[in-house]
Amino acid sequence: MHTPWDHRYAQRTQRMGSSAIRELLKLTEKPDIISFGGGLPAPEVFPVEEFHAACERVLKDHGAQALQYSTTEGYQPLREQIARHTSRYHIKINPENVLLTSGSQQALDLLGKIFINPGDHILVEEPTYLGALQAWSAYGAEYVPVPADKCGMNTDYLEEALRAGPKFIYVLPNFQNPTGVTLSLERRQKLVELADRYGVPIVEDDPYGQLRYEGEHLPAVVTLDDQFRNNKGARYHGNVIYLSTFSKILSPGLRLGWVVAPEEVIRKLVQAKQGADLHTATFNQLVAYEVSRGGFLDQHIKVIRDVYKERLSVMLSAMDRFFPAEVDWTQPSGGLFLWGIMPEYLNSENVLRDALEKKVAFVPGESFFPRGGGQNTMRINFSNATPEKIQQGISRLGEVLLEKIRQKETA
Amino acid sequence: MHTPWDHRYAQRTQRMGSSAIRELLKLTEKPDIISFGGGLPAPEVFPVEEFHAACERVLKDHGAQALQYSTTEGYQPLREQIARHTSRYHIKINPENVLLTSGSQQALDLLGKIFINPGDHILVEEPTYLGALQAWSAYGAEYVPVPADKCGMNTDYLEEALRAGPKFIYVLPNFQNPTGVTLSLERRQKLVELADRYGVPIVEDDPYGQLRYEGEHLPAVVTLDDQFRNNKGARYHGNVIYLSTFSKILSPGLRLGWVVAPEEVIRKLVQAKQGADLHTATFNQLVAYEVSRGGFLDQHIKVIRDVYKERLSVMLSAMDRFFPAEVDWTQPSGGLFLWGIMPEYLNSENVLRDALEKKVAFVPGESFFPRGGGQNTMRINFSNATPEKIQQGISRLGEVLLEKIRQKETA
Repeated sequence: MHTPWDHRYAQRTQRMGSSAIRELLKLTEKPDIISFGGGLPAPEVFPVEEFHAACERVLKDHGAQALQYSTTEGYQPLREQIARHTSRYHIKINPENVLLTSGSQQALDLLGKIFINPGDHILVEEPTYLGALQAWSAYGAEYVPVPADKCGMNTDYLEEALRAGPKFIYVLPNFQNPTGVTLSLERRQKLVELADRYGVPIVEDDPYGQLRYEGEHLPAVVTLDDQFRNNKGARYHGNVIYLSTFSKILSPGLRLGWVVAPEEVIRKLVQAKQGADLHTATFNQLVAYEVSRGGFLDQHIKVIRDVYKERLSVMLSAMDRFFPAEVDWTQPSGGLFLWGIMPEYLNSENVLRDALEKKVAFVPGESFFPRGGGQNTMRINFSNATPEKIQQGISRLGEVLLEKIRQKETA
Repeated sequence: MHTPWDHRYAQRTQRMGSSAIRELLKLTEKPDIISFGGGLPAPEVFPVEEFHAACERVLKDHGAQALQYSTTEGYQPLREQIARHTSRYHIKINPENVLLTSGSQQALDLLGKIFINPGDHILVEEPTYLGALQAWSAYGAEYVPVPADKCGMNTDYLEEALRAGPKFIYVLPNFQNPTGVTLSLERRQKLVELADRYGVPIVEDDPYGQLRYEGEHLPAVVTLDDQFRNNKGARYHGNVIYLSTFSKILSPGLRLGWVVAPEEVIRKLVQAKQGADLHTATFNQLVAYEVSRGGFLDQHIKVIRDVYKERLSVMLSAMDRFFPAEVDWTQPSGGLFLWGIMPEYLNSENVLRDALEKKVAFVPGESFFPRGGGQNTMRINFSNATPEKIQQGISRLGEVLLEKIRQKETA
């Protein structure tokens, strides 16, 4: 239908495509598909009872407050809770260093809004989180990708990329989306050192850091940055902006994330957020605070870890059993995703088409590459489906891959 | 504190100021201030019991769904409910014409993102809603203001403004924020006619339309636009994008608004929203649907109307009694605000400073003028304070005004 809006779109819309992941979420609504596509938590682990009790307490004790407008910065007790939580990682911050956002995605959007001029370059891992590319491309960002391998961003290529003059470095050090790989300690240190040498600050995105299923927790980049400056025990230096979220440890349906940043950056983010949505839903902040205080969240994270650890292990075993030798994959120590690498002659979109016929889905890897490439890769989620479905789905996907490889061989 | 971010802000941040309203909200947190500053609903009318029952039902029947990620477009039953609700106003739309947003503020932000190129002009009433100016200035908007009087935007000046080639017209026809005035039927018709003659589409922002305390409901601009095209009974034409919200009829703390737009515009808004916050909180959408279905919302709106009607009436009487003859004000038929006009030699920021000493607050009018002016105006909210506090506050404000005028006379 022709409307008077047709020729009025802003130039920036030309760089907004609909997200492959979001489009795929629609497919996963079909109940007969086993989907490894989305990044959805296991619905079985949502603490529904605790939410119910928290809603009851919040509405009984703070009903009018919970339903009213509130400040853009966020609910003060929740900011304090996050500041205390952050200090566990030896980062000394005030509640004033914390901004509550409508999911981590909004934090990415607001960072784009306050930092990115059209044409600015952002240094990213290749591949990297699609949502960041979507948020920042709308502000006219270009990307300087640094290739990643099984130890994360390959810092051998970092110096050359830094010489391109990026506005900031964007890194997901733990169980990265999409690959599931973790940046090694050596590379974290190298990253901090080189970022300092070139005077380029860092955005550290850490939605999955607490979901480690094996091995030791590695210090966050923000922690290492403070140590590097012999700043240990002193106030947060501010070179690294740190993002995290309640989405993976409590509930994504609340849309509740946070940013840790220097106070001046928080003030700018607050101004941007006023124009974007005034503030994050008050009710959700009070409920999240109620649910998570008193140590419940720590307990709950242990439950999540157990469930996901099993699912990851089932998936890895099933891949060993059902995937052809020509296909390789990452071995994450945590998070929600692993990454499949097929022979270069296979195209993951074609593979997906066949997979959907067999009622199994994943996300083709190409859209995670800011400048194209990765046509033979796929992101596979292991948190959402039950172990039985994982077995069944990987077996189906193995059949599709085997068939595709055979077709090639007999072609 | 110096940080490496100091010189990295985007150019657009130069046009982001902190909102006067938001800064004032901080003052209203002091419990001894009687604040007519914010645009807060009366906490007494929040349906806390119904929320409690709705949370219980949602968590019991749809717990896992409510806490999970969901689609960017919004919860389908809620989209359907809004489409049915809209058809009451003789606008024939599908659920696919509806996008749920994180408050109406997000709808404004997303419209800016998909339509506004730097330097584009937006035609606005003068004064107009500050939140729209904040959202759009970040995308580089300029404004073509059309003066408003006690019948809303003065359409005598509209044609000249349309010849400036604005991207779209932004209008709040009912009980406008900040003035409380309502666009007359004749001017609505003139607006639709002239907009059509110049081929310029309209954004109609209607957060308060259902809060009318006297007189007859006037047809929405979107309705008149369809009638103008002899389109009555046919499908929604799409020339007018219509915004509304649950904030004033249910709870602002949920951050839940909606856009009615052509499907193609909705698709673009969805792409922009994916990058902005993925989707509006699932839990809130399910709870709002639960609370509002079965006719509760219609009943509840009657309660709100009764409460606010009394508060408006108390405020108008108090102004008659306590305000000096030199001060004029609007007589709204609905909404949350009225507008005070002082003699030109008074400056509302100075008046506010004195008012705060007497523990009463309002918003100086200047920030609602996109190109300056209005230094002698003030926005006064009548929904939030109790009738007793309104009497007391207006009496105090009257004293301040009287004193200011006497000072001038004796100077």
